[in-house]
Parts: sequence; C-alpha cells; structure tokens
Amino acid sequence: MINVCEILGTRYPIIQGAMARIAECNLAAAVSNGGGLGIIASGGESADWLRQQIQKTREMTDQPFGVNLMLLAPNVEELIEVICEERVPVVTTGAGNPGKYIAKMKEHGIKVVPVVANVALAMRVERAGADAVVAEGTEAGGHIGETTTMALVPQIADAVKIPVIAAGGIADGRGVAAAYMLGAKGIQVGTRFLVAKECIVAQGYKDAILKAKDSSTVATGRSTGHPVRVIKNKLAREILSLEKKNEDVEKINELCTGTLAAAVRDGDADHGNIMSGQIAGLVKKEQSAAEIIQEMFKEAEEIYEDRNHICRAGSSISGNGK
Amino acid sequence: MINVCEILGTRYPIIQGAMARIAECNLAAAVSNGGGLGIIASGGESADWLRQQIQKTREMTDQPFGVNLMLLAPNVEELIEVICEERVPVVTTGAGNPGKYIAKMKEHGIKVVPVVANVALAMRVERAGADAVVAEGTEAGGHIGETTTMALVPQIADAVKIPVIAAGGIADGRGVAAAYMLGAKGIQVGTRFLVAKECIVAQGYKDAILKAKDSSTVATGRSTGHPVRVIKNKLAREILSLEKKNEDVEKINELCTGTLAAAVRDGDADHGNIMSGQIAGLVKKEQSAAEIIQEMFKEAEEIYEDRNHICRAGSSISGNGK
Repeated sequence: MINVCEILGTRYPIIQGAMARIAECNLAAAVSNGGGLGIIASGGESADWLRQQIQKTREMTDQPFGVNLMLLAPNVEELIEVICEERVPVVTTGAGNPGKYIAKMKEHGIKVVPVVANVALAMRVERAGADAVVAEGTEAGGHIGETTTMALVPQIADAVKIPVIAAGGIADGRGVAAAYMLGAKGIQVGTRFLVAKECIVAQGYKDAILKAKDSSTVATGRSTGHPVRVIKNKLAREILSLEKKNEDVEKINELCTGTLAAAVRDGDADHGNIMSGQIAGLVKKEQSAAEIIQEMFKEAEEIYEDRNHICRAGSSISGNGK
Repeated sequence: MINVCEILGTRYPIIQGAMARIAECNLAAAVSNGGGLGIIASGGESADWLRQQIQKTREMTDQPFGVNLMLLAPNVEELIEVICEERVPVVTTGAGNPGKYIAKMKEHGIKVVPVVANVALAMRVERAGADAVVAEGTEAGGHIGETTTMALVPQIADAVKIPVIAAGGIADGRGVAAAYMLGAKGIQVGTRFLVAKECIVAQGYKDAILKAKDSSTVATGRSTGHPVRVIKNKLAREILSLEKKNEDVEKINELCTGTLAAAVRDGDADHGNIMSGQIAGLVKKEQSAAEIIQEMFKEAEEIYEDRNHICRAGSSISGNGK
C-alpha cells in the first residue's frame, strides 16, 4: 500500500483540518513548511478569494498544500475550476460524497482525500477513485458525524484498501500512537492548530481553546440533523435551548448569523460560534505549527517505546505473567 | 504505580462491563475463569438475588470477580451490606459518585473501581480512596456520558495518579493497543462479551449485535439528560420521535417499560431495548469468554509489533524519512 506521506508529498503523515474562515494562507503555509499538509478551507468563500489564497500560499511555501471543498457550497463547481487551473496538489472534501468530481480532479494530477464519518461513504469514495480517506470521529470540532474515532477508524480500515487517516480527538503523541494502533496510516488535526502562532483567529478564540476542559464542548444542531461541535458558551446554550423548544430552523439560523465572524474576528467568547473538538482540554499552549507537528510525532514515538517497556515488564498488554 | 492485574487479582487487565439483567453468574464466572474480572450487575436487583449470584459465582470459579453497584438504585445500601458480608473482591460503580461508600468497602478489603465519564468525577473518586477508575467514553453501550474514549482517557490519565482503565469502543486488539497508547493500564469490555457463549442473553439480542454496522447504534434519552446507547431499532426510533416532540418523561418511560426484558429474555429485535456500544460493528462471532480475552490480548501484541515494523520501515509514525 502506498503510504500517506507519498500521497500527500509531505514529510509527516499529517493533514491540517479545514476550519472555515480560519484556515487560510497563513496557517496552511505554516503547516506545510512544518512538514505537514496545510489546508485552505474554501467553504463559504468565493472563487476569487480561493485563487488569491492559493497564490499567496505558494508565495509563502514551496511545500505541497491542499484545499478543502465543502460539497454543499453553492459555488462548488466554480471552486473546483480554480483548484484544477491552479493544480493544487491535494483536495480534502467535507459534507458529502465528492464522487462525481473525483475523476476531473485526478485528471489534473490532484490527489483527492474525502473526509468521511461512516463506513458506507468510505466505501463509495474508494470506488469513485479517492486516494485515501480521513475517518473523522464525533469528538472532532465543527460539523460532525455520530461515530467516535475509536469505533470508526478500525471499521473503515476493515472496509477499504486505501489508507485511512484518523481525525477527531488527536492533539498529542498519545492520540497519534493510538490512531496508528486502530489502523490509521496518518492523522488530521484541527483543534491544536487553532492555537498555532500562525493561525489568524482572534486571541479570544485561542483563549477559549486554551482554557477548555474535557467537558467544555457540546454538539449543537443535532435536532436539525446537522450537528456542530462548539465550545459550550452562552450562544451554544441559547441554541440548545431553542432546539429543546423545537423552534423553527429559521429562528436558530437567525440566532447564529454572524456568530462565526464574532468568534474568528472578534474573539467573542460569549456570543461567538467557537468550533472546537473535545480534545481542546489537552491543548495548553500556543506554539508554531512546525513545533506542534514535531512535538506530536516525537511524543508518539516516545509513547510507543514507553508502552513497549511496560509490556516487557509484564504488567500490561500481555497480562502480568502469572 | 501498582498495576491493574495486582489490583484486580487477575491474569489479564480486563474487566467485564456491567450489563443490567445480563451480567449474572454465568458470564461473570466465565470471564473470571478466562483470566479477566467477571462482574455481576446488581442494578435493579434485590439483595437476596445478589447474595445468591455471588454464591453461585463462587461455585463456578475460584478466581476473583466483582459486583457493579448502580448508585441510583434505591436499595444501594442493602446491596453494599451483602457485598461487604460476602467480601466480594472488587466493586465497580456506575451512575454517580460512590465517595461516601468507599471507606466502608475498603475496610472489608474490597477494591473499588468507579466508572466515570469526566475528569471532575475521576478526581473526586481518587480523593475518596478509589483504587483505579474506569474512564468510559460515549461510544460505550447503555448509560453513557458525552466525551469519547479517545478524548477522555488521556485527560483523565493526566488528572489522576491511580490507574486508568479504558472503556468504550474496545472490541479487538486494535482497541486494546490504542487504549494503552492513550494512557490506560487496563480495559473494560461490554459489547463483545454480549455474544460470549456463556452470556445468557437471548439469541435475538446476540444476533442484533452480530449483524450491527458502524452506524447501527443511537443515543436515546439525551433530551432527558440520561443518554443510553442502544441498537437503532423500531423502539429506539419511537423513543427518539417522542423526545423530538418534547413528550413528557412519563410517556417515554411508559413506552420503555418492560423493553429491557423483551430484549434480554425474548430477544425482540424490534421492541426490545438492545443496549450496545458503537463497536458492535466489529463483533462478528460468538466465542467463549476465555477465547475472547485471549484473542484480544494476543491481537494487541501482534498489532503493537506490526506497527513497530511499519515504524522501522520509515513510513508512518516518524514521517517517511525524507
């Protein structure tokens, strides 16, 4: 099987998660310069914006990078035109089945790596020619499915032949090593990159991640069928309260209007829509993207060796030798 | 740190999950004879029933076993009397903080291992004298919290000094090895033991587990604050529909009356309350409890070694060596 670094053209088998309004050229270039695959999130953006971001990223790094396509975006075909013209090395996709677009992108030499939340979609995108899949668990931030990383990764690994990249709940070397044990050949990381020094998100957003605990996130939007994991702040509580009252989707959408900008640009910890994974509780400091990548993989190797030591001491995986 | 096998008195660091109406002497003795810690689930049962089950289990095994205490049970103090009188080796607890009961049980030489779903409770039970904690992720079956195993285990491992035992999403060697990487020193397994040959649950229940896919479970009861993970059957859909309509808890409870018995005793795949973890999709055959335990740990060792091989080939954890 071709390995993930060969597919991505990167030094480390890590993809930066696509975060709407946050993942632009600065973060993407920093991750790519750090040896991972930086991603520009195109969801909610225009084709012109995307072209500009691709060109800026190219000015900031000579390493491969990618673009994330939100398949529900009304201008998705236009965005694909730009991606093909610019010959972006890798495309990740979210919110559906990219099947009908895969052939065209592959004709332009683009590697396609869909993000999926269930086995059935993983199998469909493999048949349509995807190069790898990101199996994303419900602990991830932003738009999510219902199955957890622990349950999803091995089930997708059993169902497809292409490499599986694990996402959701990974913010340190323990998560990296665990993902490999589950059958992943690479990882995607979002939440920890939110506090990368190069990430342009407002300080208030970063602070909300840095002070989060294990139970600081909640999934809003379950009642409307589009769950989104966010920090449990004033806004999130209001949304949940409307959902509990069975209010119209329009009323909920109205409440949410402008709240992503309030989070990303203004860092409004109360009224901003602060998307975050459950693993935010492990994220304790701002670092450069390169430091984050190196630290995670170094830790993963140390943990792997450490557990081996525990094994040899006869106290854990194989029982206590009695 | 004292290891989990020493605390439990077992050959393998594995606890059988407590499953109400299912986990009785037959399964508990089989797991204990297989080298794990078998558990009798006392929730919803009388003190007499529990004493009888403890005595039957002792007739069936000379190995250590445990009792699970459901802390919301109205007769919990009576059950603790029986546990102390019978000097049960280990007690696991669910649904709350066992703090005020821990000292008494420890005076009787009983090891206490609370099941927790968040960091705050893990810290509280450690202070109250717990010997270890089971950190249970939301992918587990039955009554659940909201944080996933991948996110919960490392955060609890950072917060307490006592050993952490991972639960939720573990049904094969990949899950075992991943749990160790996350910082666990042992595992608790429920769903896979549902199909143990010695498990007395009706065949219809076992068949529902054996044919489950990755997306076959759902959490009912979120709206009432008591989420329960079950197989998404006719009953589960009806409950969710009542919840969506904001019906009274009484009406939902009425619908659920007798449904656990319908599942456990009658194997009613449509109208039974078939509790199951998300990992049911990996459970493909009935085996003896001893075979399940041996296979999981053997696989875990093989997977650990296999990943090491991948590492040395330079294709994964440490990057591709470019």
